[in-house]
Amino acid sequence: MSEPLEPDFDKCDGLVPVIVQETGTGLVLMMAYMNQQAYDETRTTGRAVYYSRSRQSLWRKGETSGNVQLVKRIAIDCDRDTLLIEVDQQGGAACHEGYPSCFFREITPDGPKIVGERVFDPRDVYGKQ
Amino acid sequence: MSEPLEPDFDKCDGLVPVIVQETGTGLVLMMAYMNQQAYDETRTTGRAVYYSRSRQSLWRKGETSGNVQLVKRIAIDCDRDTLLIEVDQQGGAACHEGYPSCFFREITPDGPKIVGERVFDPRDVYGKQ
Repeated sequence: MSEPLEPDFDKCDGLVPVIVQETGTGLVLMMAYMNQQAYDETRTTGRAVYYSRSRQSLWRKGETSGNVQLVKRIAIDCDRDTLLIEVDQQGGAACHEGYPSCFFREITPDGPKIVGERVFDPRDVYGKQ
Repeated sequence: MSEPLEPDFDKCDGLVPVIVQETGTGLVLMMAYMNQQAYDETRTTGRAVYYSRSRQSLWRKGETSGNVQLVKRIAIDCDRDTLLIEVDQQGGAACHEGYPSCFFREITPDGPKIVGERVFDPRDVYGKQ
């Protein structure tokens, strides 16, 4: 394969989806997006940096909560338009709702089922509202 | 939480990204998209059905290769705009390149590194070209 192994940022308005998996446990923590700048900063610093579509700016994960993600591995898919990164999740929770994973609800025939244990109360971390 | 626990298809042009993880191993196999119809058919049949953005039609995974995905679990993220499904991958490979996972290449400081073992030769499955 002679093409350079870099994400193809041209495909999707400059963004690639990033699946974030916890190293060791294999738990899928969240999905986010990176643009070229976020990707470069992630590779340089070893900490996960995303692009927030709602805020339209770089999102240095853990800046507010302290729950930074130390990047252990970066894999890229066959089409070069999706990344899979493995991280050490500091603080034990990736989700702003206080759960280890953002995927803390299962859809079952009997209705929703919570599958994670809350690690923190979001009000303690992000301030009471 | 009183809102129904369904994917929010309105957010992203009728599509939600779906992370596909192998049950048992935790290996992340691929990422794809579902629209409402694909989601409904997946839930009804227990087999993963996606929406192909390139072909703009339903994509019944495994229709050509035989490598269907039996869905064991569906989880939804905090924003209800991403799904995580766990599947039994028939045939041992999710990727059209013949690897178990589409994420068979790692990006390392020393260059690309193949991290999966090829299960089949794509030419045998999809026909010689």
